[in-house]
Formats: sequence, C-alpha cells, structure tokens
Amino acid sequence: MRQLNILVINPNSTEAVTAGIDRALEPLRIAGGPTLECITLKEGPPGIETQAQVDAVIAPICALIEKRQDSVGAFIIACYSDPGLHRARETTSKPVFGIAESAMVTALTLGERFGIISILEGSIPRHARAVRAAGLAERFAGDIAIGIGVTDLAGDDGVLERLVSAGRRLKDDHGAGVVILGCAGMASYRKRSENALRIPVVDPTQAAATLAIGAVRLR
Amino acid sequence: MRQLNILVINPNSTEAVTAGIDRALEPLRIAGGPTLECITLKEGPPGIETQAQVDAVIAPICALIEKRQDSVGAFIIACYSDPGLHRARETTSKPVFGIAESAMVTALTLGERFGIISILEGSIPRHARAVRAAGLAERFAGDIAIGIGVTDLAGDDGVLERLVSAGRRLKDDHGAGVVILGCAGMASYRKRSENALRIPVVDPTQAAATLAIGAVRLR
Amino acid sequence: MRQLNILVINPNSTEAVTAGIDRALEPLRIAGGPTLECITLKEGPPGIETQAQVDAVIAPICALIEKRQDSVGAFIIACYSDPGLHRARETTSKPVFGIAESAMVTALTLGERFGIISILEGSIPRHARAVRAAGLAERFAGDIAIGIGVTDLAGDDGVLERLVSAGRRLKDDHGAGVVILGCAGMASYRKRSENALRIPVVDPTQAAATLAIGAVRLR
Amino acid sequence: MRQLNILVINPNSTEAVTAGIDRALEPLRIAGGPTLECITLKEGPPGIETQAQVDAVIAPICALIEKRQDSVGAFIIACYSDPGLHRARETTSKPVFGIAESAMVTALTLGERFGIISILEGSIPRHARAVRAAGLAERFAGDIAIGIGVTDLAGDDGVLERLVSAGRRLKDDHGAGVVILGCAGMASYRKRSENALRIPVVDPTQAAATLAIGAVRLR
Amino acid sequence: MRQLNILVINPNSTEAVTAGIDRALEPLRIAGGPTLECITLKEGPPGIETQAQVDAVIAPICALIEKRQDSVGAFIIACYSDPGLHRARETTSKPVFGIAESAMVTALTLGERFGIISILEGSIPRHARAVRAAGLAERFAGDIAIGIGVTDLAGDDGVLERLVSAGRRLKDDHGAGVVILGCAGMASYRKRSENALRIPVVDPTQAAATLAIGAVRLR
Amino acid sequence: MRQLNILVINPNSTEAVTAGIDRALEPLRIAGGPTLECITLKEGPPGIETQAQVDAVIAPICALIEKRQDSVGAFIIACYSDPGLHRARETTSKPVFGIAESAMVTALTLGERFGIISILEGSIPRHARAVRAAGLAERFAGDIAIGIGVTDLAGDDGVLERLVSAGRRLKDDHGAGVVILGCAGMASYRKRSENALRIPVVDPTQAAATLAIGAVRLR
Repeated sequence: MRQLNILVINPNSTEAVTAGIDRALEPLRIAGGPTLECITLKEGPPGIETQAQVDAVIAPICALIEKRQDSVGAFIIACYSDPGLHRARETTSKPVFGIAESAMVTALTLGERFGIISILEGSIPRHARAVRAAGLAERFAGDIAIGIGVTDLAGDDGVLERLVSAGRRLKDDHGAGVVILGCAGMASYRKRSENALRIPVVDPTQAAATLAIGAVRLR
Repeated sequence: MRQLNILVINPNSTEAVTAGIDRALEPLRIAGGPTLECITLKEGPPGIETQAQVDAVIAPICALIEKRQDSVGAFIIACYSDPGLHRARETTSKPVFGIAESAMVTALTLGERFGIISILEGSIPRHARAVRAAGLAERFAGDIAIGIGVTDLAGDDGVLERLVSAGRRLKDDHGAGVVILGCAGMASYRKRSENALRIPVVDPTQAAATLAIGAVRLR
Repeated sequence: MRQLNILVINPNSTEAVTAGIDRALEPLRIAGGPTLECITLKEGPPGIETQAQVDAVIAPICALIEKRQDSVGAFIIACYSDPGLHRARETTSKPVFGIAESAMVTALTLGERFGIISILEGSIPRHARAVRAAGLAERFAGDIAIGIGVTDLAGDDGVLERLVSAGRRLKDDHGAGVVILGCAGMASYRKRSENALRIPVVDPTQAAATLAIGAVRLR
Repeated sequence: MRQLNILVINPNSTEAVTAGIDRALEPLRIAGGPTLECITLKEGPPGIETQAQVDAVIAPICALIEKRQDSVGAFIIACYSDPGLHRARETTSKPVFGIAESAMVTALTLGERFGIISILEGSIPRHARAVRAAGLAERFAGDIAIGIGVTDLAGDDGVLERLVSAGRRLKDDHGAGVVILGCAGMASYRKRSENALRIPVVDPTQAAATLAIGAVRLR
Repeated sequence: MRQLNILVINPNSTEAVTAGIDRALEPLRIAGGPTLECITLKEGPPGIETQAQVDAVIAPICALIEKRQDSVGAFIIACYSDPGLHRARETTSKPVFGIAESAMVTALTLGERFGIISILEGSIPRHARAVRAAGLAERFAGDIAIGIGVTDLAGDDGVLERLVSAGRRLKDDHGAGVVILGCAGMASYRKRSENALRIPVVDPTQAAATLAIGAVRLR
Repeated sequence: MRQLNILVINPNSTEAVTAGIDRALEPLRIAGGPTLECITLKEGPPGIETQAQVDAVIAPICALIEKRQDSVGAFIIACYSDPGLHRARETTSKPVFGIAESAMVTALTLGERFGIISILEGSIPRHARAVRAAGLAERFAGDIAIGIGVTDLAGDDGVLERLVSAGRRLKDDHGAGVVILGCAGMASYRKRSENALRIPVVDPTQAAATLAIGAVRLR
C-alpha cells in the first residue's frame, strides 16, 4: 500500500516558522490525500543565515530522514538553502524535495524570469551558486535582501512593506515576471505580497509540497 | 469558493490517447481534491507530428479554454509541443500548464540531466528550440526518436522495447539521469519503462497535473 | 532557370505598414536582381500585438506560402514575432526568412550586444523567449517598449522621439552596441534613429531581404 | 553617390584559392549591383593554418583596407579565422565582414545547430574560441577536420569524399542540421557536398558577400 | 609580518593519501617561501565517496580551520568535492582554496576544454553540479570514472592504466584538451598519466597550492 | 635541471609601466624560487589601447618568446588584451600566461562574480569578447572605464579616485564580489583600491606570476 504522508522538516528551531509553514500548507491538505506533517528540527539554530548554519543542519536532517524513511512517503527540507538535499537523495529511496529547487522550477511555469527576495545580503552569493548549479541562470532576474533575520520575520513590523518594496524593484528594475520568497519563514506574506505586486509570488514550501503530493501519489 | 476542477485537453483526435491520459491521471484523483477531466479536441488531427499540426490546433485549444474558463480551475494542454501555451496564458487568468514545460521542470528535481524520447525524428528540432526557449540547455542530455507515430503508440507492438532502448542510450551514451516521455500518448508505458531503465521516467501529463493540483488549491 | 522573386508577406492588414516596408526595401532592388514583392495578408489583424494574433496568422501565412511556392524564390514573413516560420520551413522547400531571426543574426555582425525596441510591454516576454530559443542570450542587451501600437506607428507624432529615447537607454544603460527595430512598421524611422543614436540600427525586413537575395542567387 | 564595390581579400597567397572564391561569388554578381573584386594578399603565406599565420596577416590586411577604404563600399576578409576583423572595424568606417562570423550567423537561419568542417586538427580549438566569443555555443554541434592543408584543397584527390564523410559524422553523430565549410579554399565543393549530405552547406565567403551586398545597398 | 605557512587538510583519514599529497607538493616548497604542511583530518572517513561523507567532514574541517586560523596564512581543503569551502570562506578571513575549484580554473589556462577523471560513478553528478555552480559548463568536456575507491588508489594495480584509458577517452571522444585528476589520492599518477596522454594533466592539490602561495605572498 | 626563470613582457614601451609591474611582483620573488624578469617590448607603442595596437605587438612578442624560449621557464604577456597568447602557446612548449586570462580565473576563487575596471571605453567590447571566449560570461558582473590612457596612469592625479569610484559601481550596482584591474599599468593601485573597496582587487600580472611560479616548479 502507498504511503501517503509527507514529512516537512523545518531545519531551524524557531517554532513560529514551523507554525507558519504549517498554515501555508493547509490548502494542500486534501481529505483522502497525502498528509503533510510539519516538524521542527530541534538541533537547528533559531535561523539558518550562514553557510555554517546550512552545513551544520545537514547531519541531523539526514539522520531524521533515515530514521523516518520507512514510514514516510516523501520528505521536504523546508529551508531555502536546501541543506542536505543531494545527500538525502543518495541515502533514501523516498523522494526528497528542497524548497529552493522546488520554488525555482515552479517559478519557471509562472513567469518569464524569476527574482528572489532574501532575508540578508549574505544569502545572495549562496543563492547565486544554487541558481547556476541548477542550470537556471538564463531565467534568473536578480536577488534582493530585505535585511531582516529569520526570527524577526514573524514580527510583521514592516516585513510586508520591505517584501513588497524588494518585489517591486525585482519587477520594475530587473524584469522579474515572478518572485520567490527566499525563506520558509516568509510564508505568511505570500498572498498579501502577490496582491500588492500583481505578479505571481511563490512560497517555496508550497511549491515543494505540490511536487511531493504528486510524487507520493504516482509511485 | 475555489474551483477545483482541472480540464486536460488532448489536442489530437485519437480517443485512445485521451483514454491513456485519463488512466495515467487516476492516481492523482483524490477524494475531495480537484477533479481531472480529460477531453479530446475534436478539431485536432489524429496525431500532432509536425509544426503545421502544432500550429493548427492553437486556435481551437484557445477557443475551448476561453469557453470553459469561467467554470474551470486550471487547464492542461496535453501535447508535448505545448501548442498555444503562451497564447492561452495571455488570454485567461486561470493557470495553464503545458506538458512539455511541466515535464522538464519536474525532471530537474529527479536527476542530473534529462533526456527526451520522441515519437519521430521531426520532433527533435522542435524540442531543442523548446529546451533553449525554457533556458534549460545546460540540463539537457539528448533526444532520441523511436520512429513510431502517435496513432501507433497504442499498438504495443514493440513500443515498449523501443522506448527502453532509446532510454538506455540516453542514460548510457548521453548521461541522462532522468527520462521524459516526449508524447502524451506514451503514458501507459511509464511504469514499465522506469522499471526497465532503473532511473526516473516522467510522464508529462502527470507532471502537469501535479502542478495544476497545487495551483488550484493555492489560489 | 533560377526563380529570383522574393515574396514579402506583411501579416497584418495595415496597408501603410506594407507600404513602409516596400519603401524600405527599395535600396535592395537591383536591376537584374531578385524582385521584392510586398503584399498584405488580408486575413491579418490591423496589428500583431498579442500571442493570440501571432498564432492566428500562422495558418493564412502558410496557406499563402503553399499557394505561391512554385513561382516564388524565397519568402519573408515580415512580422517581428516570426509567426509560422518553423512551420513554413517544414512545408516548403523554398527558403523562408523570419524578420526577427534575420535581424538578430545580422545585428551580431554589427555590434557587441543587441538591444530591441518593442512596440508594447506585452511583446517583451515573447521576444525574450525568441532570443533564448535562438541561443543568443549572451549577446542580448535588453528590450524596451515605446508604448505605441502598430497602427499608430505611421502617425509620426512623437514616434521618432520615443524610438531614440528607448535606443539611448539601450545604449547607455544596457550596453547595446546595435539596436533592432522590433516591428516591421518602424521601417521608416531606421535612418533617422541611427543618425540620432550613432550606433547601427537594424530594420528587420531589410535584414531578411538581404539574406533572401543571397539565398535565391545561390540556390 | 553610393559606393557599390566590395573588396574580397584572400589573405593567403595561393591564387587558386582566390580564383575559387571568385567563381563561388559569381551568382552574387548582379548587373547594376555591387561589384565583388577578389584579390590575393601578396604578403600572406600559401595557407593560413596556425595562429601565427593568422596573426601575421592582420597588419597587411589592415594596411590594405586603410589604403582602399575611400574607394571601397565594404570589405570581406576571406579567411575562416577572421584575421584582423575587430581591428579593421575599429579603423575604417566602412563595413567589414569576416567569413567565419558571416557563415555562423547565416547558418543560424538554415538549421537547428551548425557543424564546422576544418582543414586541420589545429584549427579546432581556434574555432571553438571563436564560437564562444560570438556567444553561439548553444547552437554549435561540433567540428571535424579533414586533415588536408589549404594548398592541397584544389587537388580534388579525395577532398570531396573527406568533406562528405566529415559532414555525415557532423549530421549523424553530432546532430548538425547545417554544415559550414571552415576554409575559404573549400568553396568549389559546396554544391556537391550539399547534394551528398542533403542538409544545407554554407560557403563562408558567399555568406559574407550576401551580407556585404545588403550593407552597401542600405548605407 | 606575513604568515607564510599553508595548511593542507586531507579530509579523509587515509594517511597514504596525505603522504601522496605531501610528496606531490614537494616541488612547490621553496626555501624562504611559504611552508606547506599536510595533515590528515582524523575525524574523516577512509575515503570521501558519497555526498554524506562530503557533508560529514565539513564541521571538523571548519573547526580545524577556526582553531588554526591565527597562525596559518592560507588553507587548502584537499578533497575534490571541496567540502566546506564556502562555509570556511565565510568564517575565516584567511584565504581558503578548494582543490576542485583550483584545478578547474588552472585547467582553463592549459587547454580548450577540461575533462575530469573520477574515482566512482557516484561522483559524476556531484562534479557536474560543481562545474555548473562555478559557471564553467562551456569549458567542460566530460567526466569518466575509473571505478576504484580512494583507499585502493595507492595499490597501483592497474590504477595508472585505468587513468590513462579514461584520459584517452576524454581526449579522443570528448575533445578534452586538459585532464583533471578528480581525487587528491591520484596525485602520484599525474606525471605518468601526462606523459602517456600527451596533454596537460592537473593534480588539483598542486593547483590549489600554487594559488595559495600567491595569496599568502601578496596579502 | 629545471629552468626557474619567468620572463614578464610588457608589450608597451612605457618604462614606468614595466617598473610598476616589477614592483608589484616583488612579493612573489622568493629566495631560491623562480626569478621574475620584467622587460619592455621596445617595438611596442606607449600604450596598447586599440585592437590595432593589440594586433601590432603580437609579432614582436612572439619573436621575443621564440628567441628566449630555450633559457626561460615560463612567459607572461603583461597586457590585459593578452596579445599573441594563443599564438605563443602554439609556437613554444614553455608555459605562456596572459594576464587577463590569469586574472579572470584567479578572480573566480575570490568572489561570486568579477567586475573589470578598464582604462578606456574602447576596451570594453574587446574585454567582453575575451570573457565570452573564455566561457566565463556567467561569472562576469560588468566593465567600467575610468577614461585614463595607459601613459597617464602613473600620474596619480585622480587615478585612485576613479578606480575606487568605478570599483564601487561594480560592487554596488553590478553585484561584483571581486574586481580586476584591467590594465597592467594599474598595478601600483591594487592595495589602496582594495582597502577602499573592501572586496578583493586582482592585479592581473600578479595573478599570472602566481600561476607561472607553479608551472615552472611543477614541470
């Protein structure tokens, strides 16, 4: 019998981020369809903002995946740096989705070129390497940071304004036809920023969950 | 209230192809989830094998989409040449998915580089233009035709053998890590060819339906 | 005996555009050389400004080409969206030139990177796909719309000013070394805008006619 | 009054090559049209087969262009390494065409991807740099050498056979849809190799002359 | 005063590999120049052959770099998967070189396109991502595995033969003009394989040490 | 016995430039290591600022290399247009480094994307061709000219200010993570501009000398 549960791992330890992801995935929960369980990686830092933090969560993420793989239909690593994605794919036969990769490929179906809104300046070179590694540089419009760390995303003090302002620059100055929210912690702003920008805005965890639903149903 | 029905348009007039698509989408039908209605474009030719045939179905596809757009949540154009995709996107505000685009972006999550199995030699330059237009040339391994037209795909006389043989060449000689079935009419061979090739095989209509389910649930 | 006549098809129904093309091709009419007959596609809309209009003219263009192919040496499809180009090439053995493709390849011989001046914003994603499909993204500087529809190009009210202003931005801000007029209806402004911009300006129909002359003489 | 003469410079000193070019350009000579004068660079070596020979002819080519520029409408540098092309363009205001550049851009209008037939193995890295410098790597299928030096091309002993054999490998193994003769000295074999290969074969000097005719008529 | 010592970290625990690296660097030890200290990461596995092993050594590598950074002039991470390279660069202000990155950029100065010889099939997708992430796909000829794990590289039983055979295929079938040894453990075979292949063969640790010497002298 | 001397050829005749290069290389002179001899090409123009000047120095550079090749371990052509680089590599078996190529590949190890600071506007298209020919367009951020010719670089009147201003625009507006000084005559400003810009600044001759030291030690 098919396993229809999907495990969404938030690799940072901020429960508010996990809760935001959980709410964002609500529309993808269909009676009789795959379940979407969102959990917090307790070993993770409050926010994943540096390459060191990205690399540090790989081992616990993969340990968790290994432990749960017999009972889970597909995994989602819900951090926009896709930590451990390729390692996890080598070690489990279950489908594993990274939210950055999922967001980028989904964005290709929604607009001419995609822009990324990052939390901090330091994320930008990391994203640039990921775009090139994915072979998607010809469709990449640009990347703008809002200067707000992961744990401050929930505060709402001006977060939406900065997201919209960054989105506008990506649209108007860089020619982006679709914008990706470059952090799982931005999920709760998707609809509002899309309404303001009037071009599609992609929440990366929603993108990954969509692909994961297909994967578990089609295996 | 959200419209949760997805209309899958087979632009060729071969009912057997529509039936094959319909069966292939069965696993993606979830109780309480979006419906997936598959219809045959009566104006279409028996198979779409030339650029002329691709271009000829654009008008009836788009007329159909326009007529049905108020009551449909998302559209899928189920021909691997994605006829009318960009036109349809300009004329309806509902999400429209092309199966070639959907298959390529899905393949990016499943393997290093993707190969395409085509029906006829004449499809190969058309696919090459589509790969470049999508900005995906760096992830493209190659394209091999099996020399069987659309209406003969159902016959099963040697079709599987040729698909597997083409897939093996894509895997072994061209370094493909994932293979796309380059015709909606090949849907019934997906599982068997995947089992034989031991790398992921993507049915493009399944890929599009997966993305469409996410799109209608998230709007 | 060689057929030395070239048929230039203006797929929009605006006779003023056909007349402008006709005048622009005058310098390429050489006594004893190929003739250049310019005709208006009566089935076309007044201007081709959407993907729907692009797709709609494909069938009548190709019907016309088929009808005339025995007596014509080469065909030019004089719309910057190259409607039906690849279909026409599959259905006639006579050379067929698209003016966008011809302009881009000619521009490669005239400057480091090429910019495009479009009529309307909506043309820009279509052009971007065409640039990538042609594999020319590394030589593409940018695309700026002047916000004037096809039928208003003849009016001359500020058209030249806007063309020159767009050209200057392409040259100064985007690093274009050569500019392409992204509509057959802009032909009459080529010389004046080139004089103002002081970098080469390519009229796409002239570019196509040049290639067509070579093609019919060399067959 | 417009200057309608085009000067075609063969930078090697082999008169037989110049004579072959001259014959190949005959169809492009139109009564009342631009003249095409073919001359031999007396300072050139018998064949240009090394980077050293390429570089050595730049100075005399450019001296010749400077001397003749007042009375000539456009120049063609008829060596497939395009020696001095960018220098000449900086020093004269008259259009200058390189035959490699002209052949590549023309080939883009004739087939999906282009292959090159070279004289010697040593030419291949030089051509690869030129393809990349032109930004055309996505349309490049491959390059195969026939192992015959410039001065032996006239001999005809097996030259056609080797050209056709190289062309077949480019077509069948590398997916070339059009083949470029990668040496001005191969001009006399164009038609015969095209007939044998059944895909377009481009003589680079004919391609340059076509563009030059347009350039002088349109200035 | 300038710190002129370079720390070369072999992230696998096989002392024979460290010893081979040490010998390979001997020519780069110049009296009065930077010292090159080679150490074995005791936490490492015997060989780094999977993404899991790559990821697992990142933390101990970076801990070591942090501990030694005050007294060391530059670091080299001597594993062809460049584990922790970008993290280390974020956390220390001292220059850090990855041997894969160093080898690729050095190879660009030695030949038209570079091939890679890998230990195992599983390394190839990892290398492909690294080539694309570095933006070097246009200069990449191919990657061939010899099917020998890290700890068996010292054995010499047929290793050289397989390296030369893979190198020949890269040269003859893939057009490589230079070959990179895709594992630090292959260092002792560089000279012999270069002599056999007659094109440059790059030992990646030597390439990194060369760049590191420049970096410490120029700071 | 290994030849450990490196000959650095300044192809312009301005002794002040040679002297500046000589001083810039001082840190790379290691007791017991390769010597770095800097000489002025007496046949060169005062500054190499046009394609004509680039091409004109190729012959004397290569004559010099040929004359000195028996007694020299490696050559550096110290002009940012890399004149004669590929010719020299064909004619001598000794390693030859161009400073532009060396600077670009070194920059790849120092930052996400590289910017170039040029002397004059006219250099920019030449550099763009070189970036593409090297296959490095995906890592290229932009090129800005300071409008000062070679012989005025020594004057120091505002040169540093203009370099820093151009570097800031490359960093802030174009996203450069590392900047290359696009002229050998800018060597004396490297440290000061790096201090002002707070991102790595590459002197191309230092980059070439680093690679050359490795090359002569490893042969």
